[in-house]
Amino acid sequence: MLTDNGIYLNCIGVAHTPYKSITDCPRNSRFSEEIASIVIYDKYVEALTDIESSSHIFVFYWLDQANRKLLKTITKYDGVERGVFANRSPHRPNPIGISVAKLIGRQGGVLTIQGIDCIDETPIIDIKPYITENDCVPDATNF
Amino acid sequence: MLTDNGIYLNCIGVAHTPYKSITDCPRNSRFSEEIASIVIYDKYVEALTDIESSSHIFVFYWLDQANRKLLKTITKYDGVERGVFANRSPHRPNPIGISVAKLIGRQGGVLTIQGIDCIDETPIIDIKPYITENDCVPDATNF
Repeated sequence: MLTDNGIYLNCIGVAHTPYKSITDCPRNSRFSEEIASIVIYDKYVEALTDIESSSHIFVFYWLDQANRKLLKTITKYDGVERGVFANRSPHRPNPIGISVAKLIGRQGGVLTIQGIDCIDETPIIDIKPYITENDCVPDATNF
Repeated sequence: MLTDNGIYLNCIGVAHTPYKSITDCPRNSRFSEEIASIVIYDKYVEALTDIESSSHIFVFYWLDQANRKLLKTITKYDGVERGVFANRSPHRPNPIGISVAKLIGRQGGVLTIQGIDCIDETPIIDIKPYITENDCVPDATNF
């Protein structure tokens, strides 16, 4: 629903991860061996139909502990201050987080995954299949 | 702001693309040569600081014409009905769209990009740098 003030999202589920606080979270989830799970709420489980045919998924979550007022932050990677749209800080006007996760299995509404960096109990807002042809840029460059 | 009912997003800008309707949009934006622009609203322009040091960006947008009630749709790719979390349909409970775009240039709050598939005037909700090390899975498989 689009309103004058903004846009409403609904939580579709919740992440269960080994990370209890922001400081526990890995900097780069792709290189974490930790297993996590995503529990999709009953009313949305039908939307998972055939997801197990994808090896990897994008998980979108809502970083509810983020500071939405910050426009620049220090990047952990190299200690340089950059705009939040130029880094992967959780702090940003709309604190949507995204991880590319390996989909290990599914049981009903529960996805078992590897490669997510959010804290335990983070609200999930979307799941999409990762499609190499669309989503993989092997030679992107950054700072 | 997390409420009992959901989550509020604010539009941070707007996309200007050559596509005037959903039927004009390419199926795979990565293979489109069309140039588009993203206009970030003044209050958020500081958040773009140093974005030009990234060659590619994730653009997150809000698909305000989507049907949020649909849980399964026919996939254009092969005509099979799948859950909306198992395909890239714009129709989904939280219609967040994502494109991996090549960043061609920036002038103040205006980003010139290649590789976005949304219709003209689509609201923008987030921008993140694409980081190959995190985001590129060269061998992901789907149906």
